Amino acid sequence: MQKQDGMNYAPKGKPNAVCEQGEFIFAAIGLDHGHIYGMCNGLQEAGAQLKWVYDPDPTKVEKFVQTYPGVQVARSEQEVLQDTEVRLVAGAAVTSERCALGMRVMSHGKDYFTDKAPMTTLEQLATAKDIVASTGLKYAVYYSERLHVESAVYTGQLIEQGAIGRVLQVSGYGPHRISIAARPPWFFNHNQFGGILCDIGSHQVEQFLYYSGAKDARVVHSQVANYHHKQYPTFEDFGDCNMVADNGSTGYFRVDWFTPKGLSTWGDGRTIILGTEGYIELRKYVDITRKTGGNQVYLVNHEGEYHFDVNGQIGFPYFGELIMDCLHRTEKAMTQEHAFKAAELCLIAQRDAHLIEGA
Amino acid sequence: MQKQDGMNYAPKGKPNAVCEQGEFIFAAIGLDHGHIYGMCNGLQEAGAQLKWVYDPDPTKVEKFVQTYPGVQVARSEQEVLQDTEVRLVAGAAVTSERCALGMRVMSHGKDYFTDKAPMTTLEQLATAKDIVASTGLKYAVYYSERLHVESAVYTGQLIEQGAIGRVLQVSGYGPHRISIAARPPWFFNHNQFGGILCDIGSHQVEQFLYYSGAKDARVVHSQVANYHHKQYPTFEDFGDCNMVADNGSTGYFRVDWFTPKGLSTWGDGRTIILGTEGYIELRKYVDITRKTGGNQVYLVNHEGEYHFDVNGQIGFPYFGELIMDCLHRTEKAMTQEHAFKAAELCLIAQRDAHLIEGA
Repeated sequence: MQKQDGMNYAPKGKPNAVCEQGEFIFAAIGLDHGHIYGMCNGLQEAGAQLKWVYDPDPTKVEKFVQTYPGVQVARSEQEVLQDTEVRLVAGAAVTSERCALGMRVMSHGKDYFTDKAPMTTLEQLATAKDIVASTGLKYAVYYSERLHVESAVYTGQLIEQGAIGRVLQVSGYGPHRISIAARPPWFFNHNQFGGILCDIGSHQVEQFLYYSGAKDARVVHSQVANYHHKQYPTFEDFGDCNMVADNGSTGYFRVDWFTPKGLSTWGDGRTIILGTEGYIELRKYVDITRKTGGNQVYLVNHEGEYHFDVNGQIGFPYFGELIMDCLHRTEKAMTQEHAFKAAELCLIAQRDAHLIEGA
Repeated sequence: MQKQDGMNYAPKGKPNAVCEQGEFIFAAIGLDHGHIYGMCNGLQEAGAQLKWVYDPDPTKVEKFVQTYPGVQVARSEQEVLQDTEVRLVAGAAVTSERCALGMRVMSHGKDYFTDKAPMTTLEQLATAKDIVASTGLKYAVYYSERLHVESAVYTGQLIEQGAIGRVLQVSGYGPHRISIAARPPWFFNHNQFGGILCDIGSHQVEQFLYYSGAKDARVVHSQVANYHHKQYPTFEDFGDCNMVADNGSTGYFRVDWFTPKGLSTWGDGRTIILGTEGYIELRKYVDITRKTGGNQVYLVNHEGEYHFDVNGQIGFPYFGELIMDCLHRTEKAMTQEHAFKAAELCLIAQRDAHLIEGA
């Protein structure tokens, strides 16, 4: 199995167009994080047409054009924003710039689809909420560790079918390989990446809200540390967080940058969901020492122990639903409220995080 | 695989006597928890001789005698305590009575070996510390989920060998099957079982201190709930806890009584230990959907992904070390400080636990 860097994790699914060719045209602005490739893959497979790319860095643009040969290279962001054919802009800017980009996109009447985390401050979130309220446009977020992982999608279906009863707890482990040499300077700068609970923690908060079926939650404890990368003084290589949802479910997650070199993929992401009638464990990207690849779902309930290999079995319904939501102004892919609530909680967890003493 | 109840989990190991026949004589007083069988098995396999049993309930005594045919049935606790041949008393009384039993045992000049949790209040702990300080006797604790689990013992060896570098976090999951019909009334009475973080949480605290190599730690968050057993108003079926150790390691654990009927054993106990150079996952009692049984250790570090089936490979060194400690007044099995610190932290976690709203 090829070793992967998380930053280049761009899943490909089966084409499953939900619209006619040319019916949904989008552009990519901001190539700072490799997630832009996953975002564009997902939209294209669902029938969207990628018209433009813009980034001030020609090296990033060149690599992007090699991946998507039909795309036009814009000379400026304005050239994209002023094209009335473009209905949605996908962006993976530096995290702290994602909200500002969204403001520019939405002020031109287009929906926005940003990489996670969607912003780095609660002030940015308030601004984003305001423009959504005043325009009715979408500020959609690529919470890839659920939306672009077949086992994570399947698990949502199992829970909805009642396979484990009432969800009592969602535990998430989101270790990532750091791959220092390949990271840009902003990756280590707290003001830019927003802190580990904001950054890779945002996936975990979203999964907690989704699997627990909660509308809201409180952060009851959070903490961060920089144990082992002190050459980057504002970096954080470890964080964890406890939440309690409005429906009584609890959430715990740990995120870190300690994936060892010997792991066959970029991170051993797990989600363990405890219900009154059983539990589910997702081994999302690897089932260690086994050759099955990721997307291994384990379910134990009153009937027995079950193992599902769902690689290639489920697909990624989010992208088609997002396109349809944009065309029909619905919220089937994900409600705006849910996307913003996940963002809010990871920002609160980050703001209130204790610094671990003795780290 | 036969389905097991946790309360009857009494591992058997290979005989490996550390002393001569008759050199170390012990007795059993208090058969309220089935752990007494694991305690007696471990001591006997290590060469100790079981002389007496006492419990006021003749049914419990009868079952015990069937298991250990050579044991003498005492007519009273005093008959055991006044036998100067008896060096140590093993007890699995109702949790809230364990400290009082220990006081009686130690006041007769004998070492005490109690099931976990070793007490239910901080006042009891203070009393126990006092008598240990004044007599030099031992108040040893059967933290079975590490001491009597080969994968847990092996993991300690791996960490000591540096297999994962500095330990940054210990996460523990301790789900247990509730088996309501087989439980005595005290099992559901908070004053007697001490709360879930005290009871089954005590294993987890001990493992955190042990694997992290910490001398001390702070409880930074804890919470409990009774989600699904409201017919027992003071019961708790869920709890979790976060700790930070004096050396900067963090600990998280979740304990619960939600093991579904379909699991092939009494609980899917896991321990996940994150280090700077790798991580270890123990699947202690089952590796779900696999036929290997428990004691499966997974190690990932910079060299690769490894899987060790250590069933029958490691043994249980604690019991022989405890006997030698009693004979030679050493502390190789476990220091008194460590046993008490684990007790203290689970009592603090329990005392300070938030009640989960909406449960």
